[in-house]
Amino acid sequence: MSDNSAVSFLYAKEILSKGQQCLSKAYAYIKSQCMDGEGKLSSELLDNYQYSAYELAYCSAEFSAASFLIDYAEKLHKQKSGGQDIIYEQRIAMMFCAEVVQNARSKLSLRLLDYGISAALYEQTLNHPELNLFCQEQLQTCHYVALGEQLIQQEGYIADPQLGEDINIMREAFQKFSTDVVMPLAEHIHREDLLVPNEILQPLVDMGCFGLSIPEQYGGLQADGEEDTMGMIVVTEELSRGSLAAAGSLITRPEILSRALLAGGTEAQKHYWLPKLASADPFCAVAITEPDYGSDVASMKLKAERVAGGWLLNGAKTWCTFAGKAGVLLTLARTDADSSLGHRGLSMFLVEKPASDGHEFRYQQPSGGVLSGKAIATIGYRGMHSFDVFYDQVFVPDDHLLGGDAGLGKGFYYTMAGFSGGRIQTAARANGLMQAAFEQGMNYAKERKVFGHAIADYQLTQVKLARMAILLTASKQFTYAVARLMDAGKGQVEASLVKLFACKTSEWLCREAMQIHGGMGYAEESAVSRYWIDSRVLSIFEGAEETLALKVIARSMIEAADVE
Amino acid sequence: MSDNSAVSFLYAKEILSKGQQCLSKAYAYIKSQCMDGEGKLSSELLDNYQYSAYELAYCSAEFSAASFLIDYAEKLHKQKSGGQDIIYEQRIAMMFCAEVVQNARSKLSLRLLDYGISAALYEQTLNHPELNLFCQEQLQTCHYVALGEQLIQQEGYIADPQLGEDINIMREAFQKFSTDVVMPLAEHIHREDLLVPNEILQPLVDMGCFGLSIPEQYGGLQADGEEDTMGMIVVTEELSRGSLAAAGSLITRPEILSRALLAGGTEAQKHYWLPKLASADPFCAVAITEPDYGSDVASMKLKAERVAGGWLLNGAKTWCTFAGKAGVLLTLARTDADSSLGHRGLSMFLVEKPASDGHEFRYQQPSGGVLSGKAIATIGYRGMHSFDVFYDQVFVPDDHLLGGDAGLGKGFYYTMAGFSGGRIQTAARANGLMQAAFEQGMNYAKERKVFGHAIADYQLTQVKLARMAILLTASKQFTYAVARLMDAGKGQVEASLVKLFACKTSEWLCREAMQIHGGMGYAEESAVSRYWIDSRVLSIFEGAEETLALKVIARSMIEAADVE
Repeated sequence: MSDNSAVSFLYAKEILSKGQQCLSKAYAYIKSQCMDGEGKLSSELLDNYQYSAYELAYCSAEFSAASFLIDYAEKLHKQKSGGQDIIYEQRIAMMFCAEVVQNARSKLSLRLLDYGISAALYEQTLNHPELNLFCQEQLQTCHYVALGEQLIQQEGYIADPQLGEDINIMREAFQKFSTDVVMPLAEHIHREDLLVPNEILQPLVDMGCFGLSIPEQYGGLQADGEEDTMGMIVVTEELSRGSLAAAGSLITRPEILSRALLAGGTEAQKHYWLPKLASADPFCAVAITEPDYGSDVASMKLKAERVAGGWLLNGAKTWCTFAGKAGVLLTLARTDADSSLGHRGLSMFLVEKPASDGHEFRYQQPSGGVLSGKAIATIGYRGMHSFDVFYDQVFVPDDHLLGGDAGLGKGFYYTMAGFSGGRIQTAARANGLMQAAFEQGMNYAKERKVFGHAIADYQLTQVKLARMAILLTASKQFTYAVARLMDAGKGQVEASLVKLFACKTSEWLCREAMQIHGGMGYAEESAVSRYWIDSRVLSIFEGAEETLALKVIARSMIEAADVE
Repeated sequence: MSDNSAVSFLYAKEILSKGQQCLSKAYAYIKSQCMDGEGKLSSELLDNYQYSAYELAYCSAEFSAASFLIDYAEKLHKQKSGGQDIIYEQRIAMMFCAEVVQNARSKLSLRLLDYGISAALYEQTLNHPELNLFCQEQLQTCHYVALGEQLIQQEGYIADPQLGEDINIMREAFQKFSTDVVMPLAEHIHREDLLVPNEILQPLVDMGCFGLSIPEQYGGLQADGEEDTMGMIVVTEELSRGSLAAAGSLITRPEILSRALLAGGTEAQKHYWLPKLASADPFCAVAITEPDYGSDVASMKLKAERVAGGWLLNGAKTWCTFAGKAGVLLTLARTDADSSLGHRGLSMFLVEKPASDGHEFRYQQPSGGVLSGKAIATIGYRGMHSFDVFYDQVFVPDDHLLGGDAGLGKGFYYTMAGFSGGRIQTAARANGLMQAAFEQGMNYAKERKVFGHAIADYQLTQVKLARMAILLTASKQFTYAVARLMDAGKGQVEASLVKLFACKTSEWLCREAMQIHGGMGYAEESAVSRYWIDSRVLSIFEGAEETLALKVIARSMIEAADVE
């Protein structure tokens, strides 16, 4: 392929744009079918289009990924080659675009009528002859094989110059920490279901990890008045490469608390809590989900009743990760008994407790209230323990109500603020896990011989490794692009798109890396077996795949759609 | 859809046949590219087509599944409705055909040139307008929703009348045993990595499970001179529904030993060993795989040297499941030092040892030889322990060489004979696991409420459950059809096809059943988390997916292809 790269990038963008026209029409069709009598979108009618919406949301996630990847490759291309040669990243970007178009075709062409897409429209957009030509050209086996061979030759990690020197220095530090400290401990932590040990925790505290989302004026690392999503996600990515739960997810909780505090805390609360959180003294945890209401925050039942000097909390929370080690639980409670208020009856409390190391804890307050917890045994994501937590007449003083009386009824809003960075962070966690699995798969493929050759010498392995690299690059660049958007105060829908894409991709990639290991992939001593189990949690938490696709992504796309 | 069903079945068959023409052309193209100078298929050249061959093999597996499913539905339709109404199974079969066509299109259309398929040929076959129409008609969301709703209404298990009364009575007995005895123990066995307890083993011995593949004349349950693959796989399926490793895979080993003995044993060996194996006195295990040679049997190194009265064995084996509890290990060893002989230098031994219950064993023979083993910790498939086994000057008497001196050099052949039932049995194991996961997913969807409704009330759940039922039905019927072929002495390639299809499908199905459980799907107390982990082993063992697709399926399809 000897082409003019500038033209080729432009062409790829046109290809994507043609494909996206088809998605837009489908969203608009659903919108047109789901308006109620008053010209508003009806949730009930939307439920009749769940399957289509779910499929479309995933297509949208892939198209966004492709579009950001093309931008990245184009910029890099100008820097690297002065616009002359085809670079590795360009090849990857083009191939990924073609895969994305093909995937959308596979999903949509199955049931065009359900998407309200006429055969004529389909032929003019997703199935346009130019798109077919583009896919045929880009997806030839020889391209995968060439890419795979190149990857197998390549030694070590290649830094992304577009992230800037500061970020890359930070990355290197955490990469080294993961390799030297986390990785050697990770298998033991997983297999014995241990709490993350101080050998990991203390250096992270010392490096300021827990203050990454806290402004400098409150004792954190973040320049005042500036978001630093990029720093947070690069650290998350590198720590997750070491271990998802015993490193990569440690900063999730202080981030949620600090965002909630910054959004709603009184000045006194911010000054009291933020420096403590930044130095992990105490560690913290988040108690939002209830046993009977997963993603359905508006139905939460844990009750807070006003008493002299404070509140009494009664009820239960679940999936409260790190609640044992934590000294404070950010707890969402119903402060207004009128259940018809839904999420407007919820408020947020900072509930203190002593830290404890085991799989269970029980704390009896001087006033007689009891806060207790029991870890839920999970198949993976081990290192922090996730607890069922029970509140029995737990007393919380007035000044631990987030925002004071002004915060009453705003608990749902503070929850949203707290979790606003959670989705992109989860994408970064997926990327770190994928990086680790990719490295393991690559190493094993090079070392292991079957039928007289290294596994890496076989075409099928080369294709697998190439596809892994393509998807991993797409996922990382998607994440970085969304981080830039978020630092500019935008990108909330994109954060959901990248979460959906990265998490699903990580399941596939870890599975393939495992498959390269043959029987050893199933042994606990192979790290890849743990990566595969850990990757499974990512599409479940921080917005389950289905909820994210339907209630966030498709919903907002449908709302924004132009009905002719 | 008010159609004439007979016409509709005929039509579906034509659709499949048109699609398969495209696959046949692709195989023929690869063949034409891979002939050496002497008109023989060159393995080296074939390696240049691994990616295409891998994708084609999976398409072939799906087309075979669809074709058997249509046959099944057609027969059932005649029995049930006298040819009048559209029955549940017909709807499932039609939808599955359409999915299969669509999947093949997604894979092949990406790179037609690599498959040697011209645009014109593609338009006349897989992309024929009639195939498009058929897919559009069958794959409408409304059909999935209707099917999902029907499944949700339906209570309990529906027996398959085509299997006959005897098989269904057998099925019921093992279904009940799984539900009452195995299921309540399965979680504990998995989480504590325990050996399958006598509460499970003894009743299975009493029910004759270990003699299912042993002729009556040798103390087994099989009518003399008749294969009974169907009985074996129905028992396997029902036991696997209880637990993959603590029940469903128990009969794999005696089956392999008895097949090897029947193929190569002397009459004395058959009379001595087969009744013992049938009554699980002792249990047995299979020591074939070596640490450095997974699927590469011809390179095996474990050495047997002739000494007075017998042989001395030295070397190592791995993935020797149940080796601790076993009293005899079927061991493949190199009896001819000339390594250029490859698999022709291998022979088979029956190596006796005492049974032991732990994760390690060490047996010192009176002669000084030591046979020892250490269990490999695995993420799932727990209950039998899989061992690394070490042979250090292990003495085996002459009469424990399978086939006596006539068996020298025939070890590879006896291995093949032993494993000939393994692939279809693995498909049956996948089916049992899928049945269990489907039941759990269904139950949870009915019970659990989110946003005020049972999960089962949502369209997306209904579609998921419908797709699960479609794929599970296809996989089961494919397995039964291949069992019938095998009982007629045919179906070896089909056994590989159904293994590939069932195992991959089980990964998807268990993942989706887990996803329906939300956060609870990731908890060890939810059986579905274990099913998901167990399902992962299926595409790794008994012929890894890649080996099966390339070396067995694609290879035989390419060999059989007509080059014009």
